[in-house]
Amino acid sequence: MNTFGRYFRCTTFGESHGEAIGVVVDGCPPGIALGPDTIQPYLDRRRPGTGELVSPRQELDRVEILSGIFEGRTTGTPLAMLVRNMETQSGDYEQLRDVYRPGHADFTYAKKYGIRDHRGGGRSSGRETVGRVAAGAVAMQCLEKYQIRIAGRILEIHGKQTEAEMEEEVIRAASDGDSVGGIVEVIASGCPPGLGDPVFGKLDATIASAMMGIGSVKGVEIGDGFRAASLRGSEHNDPISAEGFLTNHAGGILGGISTGSEIVARLAVKPTPSIRKEQRTVDRNGEERVISVIGRHDPCIAFRVVPVAEAMLALVLIDTLLAHVQYRGFEAGLR
Amino acid sequence: MNTFGRYFRCTTFGESHGEAIGVVVDGCPPGIALGPDTIQPYLDRRRPGTGELVSPRQELDRVEILSGIFEGRTTGTPLAMLVRNMETQSGDYEQLRDVYRPGHADFTYAKKYGIRDHRGGGRSSGRETVGRVAAGAVAMQCLEKYQIRIAGRILEIHGKQTEAEMEEEVIRAASDGDSVGGIVEVIASGCPPGLGDPVFGKLDATIASAMMGIGSVKGVEIGDGFRAASLRGSEHNDPISAEGFLTNHAGGILGGISTGSEIVARLAVKPTPSIRKEQRTVDRNGEERVISVIGRHDPCIAFRVVPVAEAMLALVLIDTLLAHVQYRGFEAGLR
Amino acid sequence: MNTFGRYFRCTTFGESHGEAIGVVVDGCPPGIALGPDTIQPYLDRRRPGTGELVSPRQELDRVEILSGIFEGRTTGTPLAMLVRNMETQSGDYEQLRDVYRPGHADFTYAKKYGIRDHRGGGRSSGRETVGRVAAGAVAMQCLEKYQIRIAGRILEIHGKQTEAEMEEEVIRAASDGDSVGGIVEVIASGCPPGLGDPVFGKLDATIASAMMGIGSVKGVEIGDGFRAASLRGSEHNDPISAEGFLTNHAGGILGGISTGSEIVARLAVKPTPSIRKEQRTVDRNGEERVISVIGRHDPCIAFRVVPVAEAMLALVLIDTLLAHVQYRGFEAGLR
Amino acid sequence: MNTFGRYFRCTTFGESHGEAIGVVVDGCPPGIALGPDTIQPYLDRRRPGTGELVSPRQELDRVEILSGIFEGRTTGTPLAMLVRNMETQSGDYEQLRDVYRPGHADFTYAKKYGIRDHRGGGRSSGRETVGRVAAGAVAMQCLEKYQIRIAGRILEIHGKQTEAEMEEEVIRAASDGDSVGGIVEVIASGCPPGLGDPVFGKLDATIASAMMGIGSVKGVEIGDGFRAASLRGSEHNDPISAEGFLTNHAGGILGGISTGSEIVARLAVKPTPSIRKEQRTVDRNGEERVISVIGRHDPCIAFRVVPVAEAMLALVLIDTLLAHVQYRGFEAGLR
Repeated sequence: MNTFGRYFRCTTFGESHGEAIGVVVDGCPPGIALGPDTIQPYLDRRRPGTGELVSPRQELDRVEILSGIFEGRTTGTPLAMLVRNMETQSGDYEQLRDVYRPGHADFTYAKKYGIRDHRGGGRSSGRETVGRVAAGAVAMQCLEKYQIRIAGRILEIHGKQTEAEMEEEVIRAASDGDSVGGIVEVIASGCPPGLGDPVFGKLDATIASAMMGIGSVKGVEIGDGFRAASLRGSEHNDPISAEGFLTNHAGGILGGISTGSEIVARLAVKPTPSIRKEQRTVDRNGEERVISVIGRHDPCIAFRVVPVAEAMLALVLIDTLLAHVQYRGFEAGLR
Repeated sequence: MNTFGRYFRCTTFGESHGEAIGVVVDGCPPGIALGPDTIQPYLDRRRPGTGELVSPRQELDRVEILSGIFEGRTTGTPLAMLVRNMETQSGDYEQLRDVYRPGHADFTYAKKYGIRDHRGGGRSSGRETVGRVAAGAVAMQCLEKYQIRIAGRILEIHGKQTEAEMEEEVIRAASDGDSVGGIVEVIASGCPPGLGDPVFGKLDATIASAMMGIGSVKGVEIGDGFRAASLRGSEHNDPISAEGFLTNHAGGILGGISTGSEIVARLAVKPTPSIRKEQRTVDRNGEERVISVIGRHDPCIAFRVVPVAEAMLALVLIDTLLAHVQYRGFEAGLR
Repeated sequence: MNTFGRYFRCTTFGESHGEAIGVVVDGCPPGIALGPDTIQPYLDRRRPGTGELVSPRQELDRVEILSGIFEGRTTGTPLAMLVRNMETQSGDYEQLRDVYRPGHADFTYAKKYGIRDHRGGGRSSGRETVGRVAAGAVAMQCLEKYQIRIAGRILEIHGKQTEAEMEEEVIRAASDGDSVGGIVEVIASGCPPGLGDPVFGKLDATIASAMMGIGSVKGVEIGDGFRAASLRGSEHNDPISAEGFLTNHAGGILGGISTGSEIVARLAVKPTPSIRKEQRTVDRNGEERVISVIGRHDPCIAFRVVPVAEAMLALVLIDTLLAHVQYRGFEAGLR
Repeated sequence: MNTFGRYFRCTTFGESHGEAIGVVVDGCPPGIALGPDTIQPYLDRRRPGTGELVSPRQELDRVEILSGIFEGRTTGTPLAMLVRNMETQSGDYEQLRDVYRPGHADFTYAKKYGIRDHRGGGRSSGRETVGRVAAGAVAMQCLEKYQIRIAGRILEIHGKQTEAEMEEEVIRAASDGDSVGGIVEVIASGCPPGLGDPVFGKLDATIASAMMGIGSVKGVEIGDGFRAASLRGSEHNDPISAEGFLTNHAGGILGGISTGSEIVARLAVKPTPSIRKEQRTVDRNGEERVISVIGRHDPCIAFRVVPVAEAMLALVLIDTLLAHVQYRGFEAGLR
């Protein structure tokens, strides 16, 4: 299942070391101003090699829009977007052909499919998110019309919260041949009340699916999240005044539907599974092996998760927004 | 969107104080032994009034199977299951016709639909879960064939973990006209490796959606979950030996696909929003009001979440299992 | 797959001789005036025993609306509608437990599921259409808002076109212990241009699926249909003037999207497969048998297809209309 | 809605004169031998310029597989396939920027989207079928495993049935600046009984949708089709002997499920709407115009429909086959 969304459907494709990575977006409203220049900045942000704390791998991710655009605007037909895989040194990965890296999808893909593209993680590579980020960029372009804005950030790395501490944790882990996890927060502002759909299309359920579907994410919470479990009702309920909600413990969602307050989601990101430190594992014959994963791996994947989480939230919101305006358009008798 | 699942699709319907609550299950394999007696025990477990810590409301939830069964076995056609709403004292709720209870879906439903059934929360009532639990019971009956078992439990109430402490917290909150939140854990054992579908049908993403879609749930985590954010890769990765995974920090899922280890999910449940304590709110004209919610409300909803979380996990697993055996059946050339 | 529609989704359930037949409609816009009295007339029309040319079986199909209505209006939550099966003389069907009636689904259901409810055709009975007609009635109520009207009629019976001839054909066939087929036409007027969705959601493709999915239908055509195959382009193309299309060979659809002209579909209905005349068949052990199907069977099923075809067209149109207004609502910036 | 299929989902993209045309196939089983050489022959067959009776336009449709293949086999991940649009003389189409060609989607796309790519019909061009044929080629590769074979052919052109007559009709129409319609038949042999899904996933309903969704198709029939409307039950019912069905009036489908006999579908193809003969139309300001469509257009599109109908039937069959083996795999307890 490589499609996300019911109305604004994005289907990603591509493996880390295949010919190309991309996405088809079906259901984008017509008339949205769009071109490669609209998408490229989002891809540049997710690219490794653009910060000190991320992997030095140089990827030149030039997006090409193959369809769905006419004279600078969307036409309502599918947008296919493509990024060629340039730097694909498959040789690096030959050692991984038969061995399963702990914490990776190597084992599970092998069990599921009986065949797997071992080069760079194949389909389970973080590189697949190029398609999501490109689709998310289109979604954000649409959300602009409603002044809905999305912003993500790192909250914690390895339990630390100041920038200096976080940086130190990453550097120390890297020098130990190890990695660290972190927490990402993503916020949407400007959402009208009414987004989300009972009972199985709740906005928070859809966000949870979107976020947990990002590689390395092991937890998702909305508003107070897990902290709500330690609160009393009188502390957690958000009182309402004539001006609106006085607090936002709910993270902008009640009963699965947006309240009009900021939508706040947090993601727990596990430490990068690829580490130089030796680990016990097996090969595909079940023989025990010791593995030290060599290569250009981010010591902390949380930084890379930020733009992807933003993209996924944009995809969720445009989808629920389109569902929402459907009834409004019908009610208004639009033709 | 009141349908869950792609292959084993359950569609719930019904409001708290309408005629009936129910579910249609479409896609259940034929030949499964099933009758009201198979379903009833699950409904009895979710019923209030069966423990000291839950609301004393007496609901007689007798399930009726309207279709899809012939001579005690499923036929492959839709199973419609119905529970009549017996005790529906709408009078209790007249005070809530125009006022929005903080922490509830009253405000958001009103904004979304312009019309709402205010009696007992209408569609957003916990009573809707009758349909999910009935469908979950069918799913569990199917999972039996694969020896997949599901069990949920309360981990924490208001930050406390021993039974005595938890009980005390609930009683104290109730006597204060307040409520408390908690943490629920649900575990599936016996799952074969290979369940789950990249990229947007990941097992953990589907579980996250299923769990976050339960009323009052504000967070979901898999395996180490949020704790993984404070770990190093060498601590979080599960080493593999010839006998299998040596630990289960991953909670049974890698790359969105089951590993064969136990699948472990935890849910943060917010405190029941209906409390006797006075709270600030508004009515539908935007006038400020003070509300004290009177009625038979559980002081801690987490107990009620347990059977629903089990049901939802069963629904997720039968759905992914059916997806999984599809390729296996094709591979084997079954006709 | 017992669900039809992407936005206005109806899921039917029930067997001919089970407890009940019904439907859940999910996605109906809120605020539509609706009650059992709105639905009942549609069910009465499809009921047998209401005309001379249809089976004398007396079914009392009283619809009950279980959910989704509050104070006489839809609330946006699922509408569950139920009709109890009153007259279910299973005894009649005992002879059919093991034998496959030619032209029926008996053989194919047995092969597919390994188990089948043989009583009255079980799920494959025409009685299943009760759910479709009830859902169609809701759809028509919604379409009223747009002044979209649907009307079906019999065009031909056994090749004859006048009422007297058609009646004669039916009576003669019945007295021979045989049956006859016919052609049904269904027309929608008042549709705005723009309904339908390239490439796989074309309006005509969706209509074709809806109509061919009615039991006994073996062919569907739009506008000129099969006659178009014998025409030249200069004859078939509809010229356009400043006042609109001058002809309607296209049947109101071009490129899968409505033109604003009347939408015209025709259905070929096969002769009722249940006939008294002896036919060769086999039982479930593969033993050859001769069968004479006794019971109250319409000698011409086409009459019964008319209200079902109307209902299905209504379901197609409300679904495509909701898809259509989605973009319009977004374009207008509705909240 | 540019996606077809529930299990084996193909999403096409691309406009006639955009950068590229293509398809993403999601849900293809792993382990199927596949490469560009498997797909190319199917594309070559659909290419114009390969016969006397089709347009002389020379398209070099070289397929590129971007993902989903590893060492010559499918991996279970999405297959993205691409064909660059080489010969895109947009200039030819400048005259059509503002005017609506009768019989074409020009008018309806403009009404629906407010914007349209007029070059070569944009998304509504027959060129879009490149993606379908490529996906169909993958489907056929999968169906090979079950010895399911598909073959299409022209039955009639402009009412004529011999090859000489048909050729003459096409040549005469072309020389008149006109075009002719025809009837295409497509047959699948080797299908096991049990394919198709009641009530809304019937095999014939799915075939009807697939075929009617091909541009220019105005009618679909199964088995006897429209002729069944003129038959009696005793003539149309297929008797069953110990050796199987003695006739195949049903076209291989009963109750929406395959019988094991050949599946037979026929399509009515309208005459090519683009003709040199003058026709009345309007431009986008509603001004009346007379149009003579100049360009390289097939005088009879039915020839081009054959490979597309084959591809669509393959897509329907692999999808229903995968649904079918799901239950079989579950029943067998496969892991």
